[in-house]
Amino acid sequence: MIKTDILIIGAGPTGLFAVFEAGLLQLKCHLIDALPQAGGQCSEIYPKKPIYDIPGFPEVLAGELVDNLMEQIRPFQPGFTLGERAETIEKLNDGTFVVTTNKGTKHHAPVVAIAGGLGSFEPRKPLLDNLAQYEDNGVAYMIKEPEMYRDKKVLIAGGGDSALDWSIFLADVAEEVTLVHRRNEFRGALDSVEKVQHLKDQGKIKLMTPAEVVSLHGEGKLEKVMVRNTDTDEDTEVRVDHFIPLFGLSPKLGPIGNWGLEIEKNAIKVDNALDYQTNIPGIYAIGDVNTYPGKLKLILCGFHEATLMCQSAYQRIHPDKKYVMKYTTVGGVTGFDGSKKEAPKAVVKAID
Amino acid sequence: MIKTDILIIGAGPTGLFAVFEAGLLQLKCHLIDALPQAGGQCSEIYPKKPIYDIPGFPEVLAGELVDNLMEQIRPFQPGFTLGERAETIEKLNDGTFVVTTNKGTKHHAPVVAIAGGLGSFEPRKPLLDNLAQYEDNGVAYMIKEPEMYRDKKVLIAGGGDSALDWSIFLADVAEEVTLVHRRNEFRGALDSVEKVQHLKDQGKIKLMTPAEVVSLHGEGKLEKVMVRNTDTDEDTEVRVDHFIPLFGLSPKLGPIGNWGLEIEKNAIKVDNALDYQTNIPGIYAIGDVNTYPGKLKLILCGFHEATLMCQSAYQRIHPDKKYVMKYTTVGGVTGFDGSKKEAPKAVVKAID
Ligand SMILES: Cc1cc2nc3c(=O)[nH]c(=O)nc-3n(C[C@H](O)[C@H](O)[C@H](O)COP(=O)(O)OP(=O)(O)OC[C@H]3O[C@@H](n4cnc5c(N)ncnc54)[C@H](O)[C@@H]3O)c2cc1C
Ligand SMILES: Cc1cc2nc3c(=O)[nH]c(=O)nc-3n(C[C@H](O)[C@H](O)[C@H](O)COP(=O)(O)OP(=O)(O)OC[C@H]3O[C@@H](n4cnc5c(N)ncnc54)[C@H](O)[C@@H]3O)c2cc1C
Repeated sequence: MIKTDILIIGAGPTGLFAVFEAGLLQLKCHLIDALPQAGGQCSEIYPKKPIYDIPGFPEVLAGELVDNLMEQIRPFQPGFTLGERAETIEKLNDGTFVVTTNKGTKHHAPVVAIAGGLGSFEPRKPLLDNLAQYEDNGVAYMIKEPEMYRDKKVLIAGGGDSALDWSIFLADVAEEVTLVHRRNEFRGALDSVEKVQHLKDQGKIKLMTPAEVVSLHGEGKLEKVMVRNTDTDEDTEVRVDHFIPLFGLSPKLGPIGNWGLEIEKNAIKVDNALDYQTNIPGIYAIGDVNTYPGKLKLILCGFHEATLMCQSAYQRIHPDKKYVMKYTTVGGVTGFDGSKKEAPKAVVKAID
Repeated sequence: MIKTDILIIGAGPTGLFAVFEAGLLQLKCHLIDALPQAGGQCSEIYPKKPIYDIPGFPEVLAGELVDNLMEQIRPFQPGFTLGERAETIEKLNDGTFVVTTNKGTKHHAPVVAIAGGLGSFEPRKPLLDNLAQYEDNGVAYMIKEPEMYRDKKVLIAGGGDSALDWSIFLADVAEEVTLVHRRNEFRGALDSVEKVQHLKDQGKIKLMTPAEVVSLHGEGKLEKVMVRNTDTDEDTEVRVDHFIPLFGLSPKLGPIGNWGLEIEKNAIKVDNALDYQTNIPGIYAIGDVNTYPGKLKLILCGFHEATLMCQSAYQRIHPDKKYVMKYTTVGGVTGFDGSKKEAPKAVVKAID
């Protein structure tokens, strides 16, 4: 059982910044995310696109913003349960919570902060009869540990940035990379498209277009797939160890919708006049996942909500203590890793 | 009469960022600040100190943050009335406002956003009999246009960063710089103290310590001051064109306190459940200057408040229009200066 002070569901920008504000209050955080990496929408949907409305950044790439946030929270050593979806929540008699994921991992905390954005990202799957049977036996919808594909035969399907980028990456790792797409045209960043063209010309990526995977075969685990050329209707058998359809992930509020929380417009209602708490005391909702009159689904709003939420969580966890806020400039930042950042002090010095 | 959409009182980080959010809604802003420069507390009190809790910046100097914000709002060409204090407000019959400064400058707008922080910064003045008579005739408490000191005799009093930094700066501009401080020790950044020591050794700054100015003299304008060595009680006459006591500025809510706004704990009460409007419709209060249950006087909170305020201001100014929010990443940023920032589009390209 993983134990922490604030259990954060969702490692998007809001959840990440909550770790920092909690850390200033000496509260520890653990994050659960269905995706294999932190950053939420910023990492999953538009890591290479610029955002213009983060205060103090005339322009910042979404991926850079996430990197910066990861660097900012590093002193507070958050724990991560990645690639798992928070599935159920149980309130114990002492008012604390246990949250269990779809893989059975259990987390225990006095405060739960849902920073689930538009929901947990779920892959769009191809319509193939025996697909479920090969899931985790050769079929995967996201890449968690690229090393598991070393010296394997991999077939990637898709025509967007994810399919392009992972084909490029695995071209150096896997024994064989085949990229299948139902059109001849790919849609992505120009340099990714050009790199794939180059790797194809070098024979490092096998390209099959316009085509789609029509059936899966293998005993116990995936051994081969049938790929149909959609122009000629001709089928080709391809021997593979892994089939990775990258057709995009779409967010679904999912199981959180059944936790007894007040839901409105597919989001969780919170008390924005006070502390972004939900109708269940001890459960907060911050960032894109919440709603209240005038709510804007913007990153900078999640930052403010996370900050006020942490103050309230502190009172809940330490009902007997009174927290006196100190500016970081004045008090510095003391990490759980023993690090300390602080402003250089003014010197007092005579001039003679 | 200066006319604008949103008149912002206070050019601290909150007021500055409001210009950006208003600009995204195609609303123009004008800012009034009692200080000669933008940036509020960040510029006036701690420009060279690091802040650690601005989201996305593991560390940023307060002065850098202000520079970044100025760069971010540049496309929206805000107007500035600097070095003047907003003194009175009048609500016209059509519901719009006229705000007049202590220098008589008038501003007209349908919406007023008070982003006054801890109040307008007012100089701490030395206790000298005929001080008022020389104000603007040789005595100044802040430096607005350094060029007006070119080839003049300047006497600066004070022992902190402002006194040190301006002595260093004017050593190259003025005919003569005398620095008077009541102790031998100065309190400031190490490199400033060392630079003054160096300029003194070179004869570019005259230093008088421990000492204080005890009287002012001159017909119509300042011509000389009497400086007393506080160790020996000996008086020295110094011929000067300008006497600039830099004893620090302290913020005072000031005239805004008499505008009929609900005040609590020296701050303006607002409706934080909706749009940070005050008890007077059309007047909003954002950033350090406002208060509500759970309020934190932090920069990141002002950013969020400014953003929600602008949405409400938009509805007030355009009651007939419905604004549909677009992510900056998707819609780009279109400046009033004709500039346009936008994300590179994904290419659609065949690989052959
Ligand atoms: C193309 C695009 C452009 C954008 N441009 C801008 C912009 O310019 N400015 C701006 O401010 N905003 C922009 N946004 C919106 C911005 O990305 C979101 O406001 C922001 O990501 C919200 O952050 P969050 O942390 O609240 O949620 P998210 O980023 O959505 O992260 C939520 C995370 O929670 C996880 N999760 C949810 N439920 C569960 C569960 N049950 N178990 C495990 N994990 C779960 C999800 O997998 C996800 O990773 C843009 C969005 C898109 C798609
Ligand atoms: C030493 C120090 C360290 C700090 N460290 C941090 C930190 O680490 N993190 C953090 O988030 N915050 C920190 N703060 C607080 C932070 O600086 C403030 O929260 C922030 O400046 C508030 O911004 P603002 O725009 O609301 O107001 P301000 O920055 O106070 O600006 C308000 C402006 O309004 C002007 N004004 C007011 N009334 C009038 C009037 N009637 N007419 C004309 N002008 C007027 C003032 O002159 C001023 O320039 C620190 C503050 C100090 C002093």
